[in-house]
Amino acid sequence: MKLSCDNIGSREDTICALATAPGMAALAVIRISGPKSFSIIEEIFRTIKGKKKEFKKIKPYSLHFGKIIDQDQIIDEILVSVFKGPHSYTGEDTIEISCHGSTYIQQSILQLLIRSGARMADPGEFTLRAFLNGKLDLSQAEAVSDLISSQHASAHKVALQQLRGGYSDTMQHLRQQLVDFASLIELELDFAEEDVEFANREKLTSLVEGLLIEIRRLQKSFIEGNVLKSGVSVLIAGKPNVGKSTLVNALLNEERAIVSDIAGTTRDVIEDYLVIDGIQFRFMDTAGIRHSEDVIEQMGVERTHQHASKAAVIVYVADPVQSDVAEIESEIKELQLRSGNNDAPVVTVINKSDQYAFEKLLKQYETLPGLVILSAKEKLHIETLKAKLAGAAMISNDQAGQTIVTSARHAESLHLAAIALEKVIAGIQQNLSTDLLAFELKDSIYHLGLITGAIYTDDLLENIFSKFCIGK
Amino acid sequence: MKLSCDNIGSREDTICALATAPGMAALAVIRISGPKSFSIIEEIFRTIKGKKKEFKKIKPYSLHFGKIIDQDQIIDEILVSVFKGPHSYTGEDTIEISCHGSTYIQQSILQLLIRSGARMADPGEFTLRAFLNGKLDLSQAEAVSDLISSQHASAHKVALQQLRGGYSDTMQHLRQQLVDFASLIELELDFAEEDVEFANREKLTSLVEGLLIEIRRLQKSFIEGNVLKSGVSVLIAGKPNVGKSTLVNALLNEERAIVSDIAGTTRDVIEDYLVIDGIQFRFMDTAGIRHSEDVIEQMGVERTHQHASKAAVIVYVADPVQSDVAEIESEIKELQLRSGNNDAPVVTVINKSDQYAFEKLLKQYETLPGLVILSAKEKLHIETLKAKLAGAAMISNDQAGQTIVTSARHAESLHLAAIALEKVIAGIQQNLSTDLLAFELKDSIYHLGLITGAIYTDDLLENIFSKFCIGK
Repeated sequence: MKLSCDNIGSREDTICALATAPGMAALAVIRISGPKSFSIIEEIFRTIKGKKKEFKKIKPYSLHFGKIIDQDQIIDEILVSVFKGPHSYTGEDTIEISCHGSTYIQQSILQLLIRSGARMADPGEFTLRAFLNGKLDLSQAEAVSDLISSQHASAHKVALQQLRGGYSDTMQHLRQQLVDFASLIELELDFAEEDVEFANREKLTSLVEGLLIEIRRLQKSFIEGNVLKSGVSVLIAGKPNVGKSTLVNALLNEERAIVSDIAGTTRDVIEDYLVIDGIQFRFMDTAGIRHSEDVIEQMGVERTHQHASKAAVIVYVADPVQSDVAEIESEIKELQLRSGNNDAPVVTVINKSDQYAFEKLLKQYETLPGLVILSAKEKLHIETLKAKLAGAAMISNDQAGQTIVTSARHAESLHLAAIALEKVIAGIQQNLSTDLLAFELKDSIYHLGLITGAIYTDDLLENIFSKFCIGK
Repeated sequence: MKLSCDNIGSREDTICALATAPGMAALAVIRISGPKSFSIIEEIFRTIKGKKKEFKKIKPYSLHFGKIIDQDQIIDEILVSVFKGPHSYTGEDTIEISCHGSTYIQQSILQLLIRSGARMADPGEFTLRAFLNGKLDLSQAEAVSDLISSQHASAHKVALQQLRGGYSDTMQHLRQQLVDFASLIELELDFAEEDVEFANREKLTSLVEGLLIEIRRLQKSFIEGNVLKSGVSVLIAGKPNVGKSTLVNALLNEERAIVSDIAGTTRDVIEDYLVIDGIQFRFMDTAGIRHSEDVIEQMGVERTHQHASKAAVIVYVADPVQSDVAEIESEIKELQLRSGNNDAPVVTVINKSDQYAFEKLLKQYETLPGLVILSAKEKLHIETLKAKLAGAAMISNDQAGQTIVTSARHAESLHLAAIALEKVIAGIQQNLSTDLLAFELKDSIYHLGLITGAIYTDDLLENIFSKFCIGK
């Protein structure tokens, strides 16, 4: 049931792109894939002594030192890697040119490749070809994109597991059981006049119920999966001037120092995030909560409640001078009530511990949920808060090893498959006609097929691969 | 006469670094070089089926698909390139790991390599090792850095030629002739009591004179070389509101459109530069020239004259309504006089051609130097100005093929060698004693040796390689 793929760039073309990050560096890698890869590289490659090489006859998985020439001009001394289809990433003949990392050289080589008959690859087109050539299924292809953008241990782990097929295996397994039943039902349709029942309805009900349990587990894992992929959202709430921003800075600054340990691998992109035990946390610092008649201030408080409704963890920060236990408890309760979020674990932070006796504070506030006593300014007991956050996120590292759904697209397909399967069960109970039952079964098979790409449309592919970076 | 190199990181170490540009991309390459390269990769590499590989026994210049593992955790599926010393860039056993271009993965692999016994490479340390292992001479090593930072055709061409040894060959040739003569002079010293003359003074004089001519040519080429490397500085001068900024934008905007032809290779770094016929131009837009008593304005005009003194080309922009031929001529003369720059070619731009009859303007202003009539606003005849600029820069592409000095360090060594050689000639004319003559000869041999690294010091190496990027 594969739909056509004509709108997606033709596989007759040979495509090229810069595969490494743009900018100046020691090396850059340019990738070429398609039927003309070898003839193009033969045209523009010479050995250091100026000889041509017959790439078609060369042993694959080999490296060749030489130069790229544009007529009589040398562009660079480079290293060529040779991969022969189907034993390459795309499944096609592929060449990788490792050149000096000057943007001028990168440009010159790409322009030369285009003049020699290649064209610039679209975003994700190398991986699209890998999918179309059967090297990856669709969920694996999506994992490649997730893997590249993964910035912390848990997201990386989930993406890598999905890339290695753990995800697809489960999907395929589920879908195959449905396909088997569907074919039995189809058989019944062929013998409709004889009123036979090849597909045992009780067995079918029990299979579909089993499937629904598995699908619901996967649907539930999407919430966790999203957390693993996007990070745990933490709301930092509390009255004005209790030290919320200082606290966030204290948490993040420590992390920055760790990050810069290895030169050359800046992680600027995530400097507003914090990773604890491989789990990423995103902090939402908010307007201080205060009961106010002022309209503008009221809007700030409103926003706090909106944020609170989405938070996976709520950190309530209080100053021991300003608030006693009863007041803090009532503030937290009101936050939960107004945001409608009772599920998110609460961590109560009593700040400015440097100014008071620790033991006294501990005794005074011990009844508060998830109590941490610290000093954001003096950076005291920040580690305790980190440990508490990791605990509150309630994601053990083991869970990342299970089959977890991280893609909204997959969650949607699972949702539609579940609806169809529920109709199958209802149909059996209501003694629905075999052809209507067959229709609902096919529907769920279709939606599960969309996940691995056993079924796809051009729109779906374009939607998925346009999010990739160029060169992948 | 090689000096010790103990302060520069020990070559007993195995070094590693990210070789491609930092950031998210399809691929990233991590380079490992040194005696432990193979044993480290054996520890952390497994085939897809989970088997170890004996990299010491593997054919060099080969590629190996597999995964990087940290104990039982898979970090990534990767491709390993194997190079065996001395047939590698550094001359040592070298491994390149091509991994997915996620910063998290890059970091994880580097951290694993460090835990496995490698250390982070210093800037330029791979190329330093290539030099110390005799794979490159010093001027070639410097060319690697120039090549990476080259952003236009002429700089690229000069760097590539220097990397390929064109430069060093000339240096070595010059130096060898001196060495031959020095040994004859040394021989005379051994027979000092016999008053023999092995080194014919006339021949020596003629050789040294020939050398001086060659050195002076190279010294002169440094001015051109600097232009090729850093670009031609163009002063845009003229009265206020004649359209100077519009003109610069018209020149640059066109270029930007061309630059963005190829996605993925942004050239943000040079967006204030313009490349015409492979030569880079840098524009200095200045305060309008106006005779003024105002102190602040006077300072602006002062700055214009300072810029003018350094400009390689002066573009004087005039509005036909504001100024007649005599006035423009006198303004240009004053600019030349006050800046002391009579050498820079002048291009006179008559702007706002869209508002007047072209033929009339041409007739009226034809006596002005390097006349171009255009409209910056309507982007008319901008190409004519470009052609005029390329001509005014007076650098033919052929000159880039000659031996050209681009390094201030080399220019300094040539300068000191020339001084020593002049002393040799003076010494011969004044019948100086053989031992003093020998001293001056040795001095010039020393300075020429510094260029190729036949002679070097730790300070010199540190100074050169600290300017490299990490991973090269």
